[in-house]
Amino acid sequence: MSAQFLPKGFLLATAQAGFKQAGRPDLALVVSQGPASAAGVFTTNLFKAAPVQVATSMLIACREARAIVINTGQANACTGETGMANCCRTQELIAAATNLTPQDVLPASTGVIGVQLKMDLWEKAISALVANLGKATVEEFATAIMTTDRFPKFTSEQLTLGGKKVTLTGVAKGAGMICPNMATMISVVLCDADIATDVWQGMFDRAVTRTFNRVTVDGDTSTNDTLFGLANGASGVRPQGEALLQLEKALTRILATLAYALVEDGEGATKVMHISIRGARDNADAEKAARAVGQSPLVKTAMYGKDANWGRIVAALGRSGADFHPRDVRVSLCGVELFRDEQPTNCDFDTLLKKPLQETDLQLDIILGAGPGAYTLLASDLTHAYIDINADYRS
Amino acid sequence: MSAQFLPKGFLLATAQAGFKQAGRPDLALVVSQGPASAAGVFTTNLFKAAPVQVATSMLIACREARAIVINTGQANACTGETGMANCCRTQELIAAATNLTPQDVLPASTGVIGVQLKMDLWEKAISALVANLGKATVEEFATAIMTTDRFPKFTSEQLTLGGKKVTLTGVAKGAGMICPNMATMISVVLCDADIATDVWQGMFDRAVTRTFNRVTVDGDTSTNDTLFGLANGASGVRPQGEALLQLEKALTRILATLAYALVEDGEGATKVMHISIRGARDNADAEKAARAVGQSPLVKTAMYGKDANWGRIVAALGRSGADFHPRDVRVSLCGVELFRDEQPTNCDFDTLLKKPLQETDLQLDIILGAGPGAYTLLASDLTHAYIDINADYRS
Repeated sequence: MSAQFLPKGFLLATAQAGFKQAGRPDLALVVSQGPASAAGVFTTNLFKAAPVQVATSMLIACREARAIVINTGQANACTGETGMANCCRTQELIAAATNLTPQDVLPASTGVIGVQLKMDLWEKAISALVANLGKATVEEFATAIMTTDRFPKFTSEQLTLGGKKVTLTGVAKGAGMICPNMATMISVVLCDADIATDVWQGMFDRAVTRTFNRVTVDGDTSTNDTLFGLANGASGVRPQGEALLQLEKALTRILATLAYALVEDGEGATKVMHISIRGARDNADAEKAARAVGQSPLVKTAMYGKDANWGRIVAALGRSGADFHPRDVRVSLCGVELFRDEQPTNCDFDTLLKKPLQETDLQLDIILGAGPGAYTLLASDLTHAYIDINADYRS
Repeated sequence: MSAQFLPKGFLLATAQAGFKQAGRPDLALVVSQGPASAAGVFTTNLFKAAPVQVATSMLIACREARAIVINTGQANACTGETGMANCCRTQELIAAATNLTPQDVLPASTGVIGVQLKMDLWEKAISALVANLGKATVEEFATAIMTTDRFPKFTSEQLTLGGKKVTLTGVAKGAGMICPNMATMISVVLCDADIATDVWQGMFDRAVTRTFNRVTVDGDTSTNDTLFGLANGASGVRPQGEALLQLEKALTRILATLAYALVEDGEGATKVMHISIRGARDNADAEKAARAVGQSPLVKTAMYGKDANWGRIVAALGRSGADFHPRDVRVSLCGVELFRDEQPTNCDFDTLLKKPLQETDLQLDIILGAGPGAYTLLASDLTHAYIDINADYRS
């Protein structure tokens, strides 16, 4: 991933609590040295993990926070009242050890669904975790929240706003929109600008729509998806007007980089399809078309097989529910037009695409000819390794 | 499959025209000795194959027909004006050889998308095809329309209505809702009862909603899906009242048997999930929940892996868009309750389910606790063989 800078006024820590069998760090903490505007975006799944429910309530009550604690190993989802109580207990443990209040500590969990947190291990790990505060790097923090991820995901940007430096850093984990026994998406963005809480949350809502919500691995949405943002003002910069727009653009780039990394690291993935729909009746129709293509098992296996299978793409468009006329549709793959005028084009695309289809990134441009609607989506392919990971790992 | 009876007044024929490389029959014809009420149900995909467009127009103009001709090898989809002209030419060829008019002959095609029919082979094959009329069995007819299917699909019922015998026979082909380079679903039902055309079509519309529309292999819908029904009255029975209801029930059973066979023979399938949703807010919500579960790659791979992974089922329900409260949800697999009160049940389901999960048919009962809505869906699993078939066959 790209360079790592830690925004001012934040301290990171990781620890190895033993939540997972593997001897890897599995607990991560970030503490802001002063109050921070807090933004949150959560899963839309009706089954929300205990920490998602707790954090959602906290941010409704107050859009400020001082710390975020993340464990792997247990998702604390589908764990009933005991799970809620355990989640609150973790907030208390962190708060007591850092001179904060429980309401300052945003919780997130990832791992196996339906299993309770191992509270004895939590109790034991807290002192080592807090002793590590300020010693962990961004990369170490990103590594500590990994589950089935193949690589840590983090990125930073530094902007000069009003003559002063502002730093924005994001980390994420996840090898799929969902992997109910092992994973789910969690992301944290830290910033040392001074931003009003509602402005900060608005930036996240808009940026997520254009980034994390435009990726798909398997079309499933997890019970634990969580994105937190903390802005603590430690840079002394309070962006206004144009500077706020610059910051939002940087935030969107950060989230786009992390979102791309999620698809690149998707379960079993060997390809990242960049699906661009233009000329839909409206944006909603464009999204329908993009998702039908990006989630079609037939398109996904074709990309894995390096097969310029325009028929599967066209068939997915035709069943997507988007409104268009087949005669207006044009489909290009890696810059080569495969389909127009309701028929395959005459070019020898198997030869033309032999080399481009070896690449990881595949550009798919689709024009529907029905209006001004547009949408882009990143999607992984569907591979033997996906089946291995998801069918075989318990046997 | 079950017993084969051919209803009175129908003649079947098959031929080997050479449309496919393999030396297998690839052309099938049924001719009714008298006029028959004709019903048709077609794909909802916006990209409709030429024969789908032609047959749809024919049935709008006149709900009677005398013959159905089906070829494999080329789907005649995405073939432009030439494809439409070729389709009409096949009707003319059959009509000329059987003393019918082109408007008596319903066409259907299945095979590779975007490739024109091989008209020279059609011209050559017609005489052998027509010479074979009356000699082919139901099983031979069902075999001639196979593409990637592993076994021919056919079933018959004989009813006694008003003291006389009525026979109803159905055949189908397809190894998925879609397989754009190779297949698609085609089905034909023949009956020797005397039924008014609008009554006959109404029976099909209702029966399809409860059968073919309730199966999914990969969630994709083909460009060629076609179901034809011919009722020629040759039994001399004109069912009324209760007898019509009996006939519709028999038709529904015939289509249900064929629909099950499509899932059983789904690409790479090793399992048939029988997903039953009850207690949804309404039937539409129940369908949303059933499809989210039946199309989830994570649930499908878990079933393949013989893994009682309730977490994936619950997560799919939660993102389905169906309206319910998590606390009311109950999930049972093969009769064993896995999840209730927002938590996994205490039973040792890995042990209890070890044997049941070895079976082909897996019953999944889900109660949402939100109302009277119900829906059932048959779904296949997602396997290594599916990836082999769809990623590797062109390489």
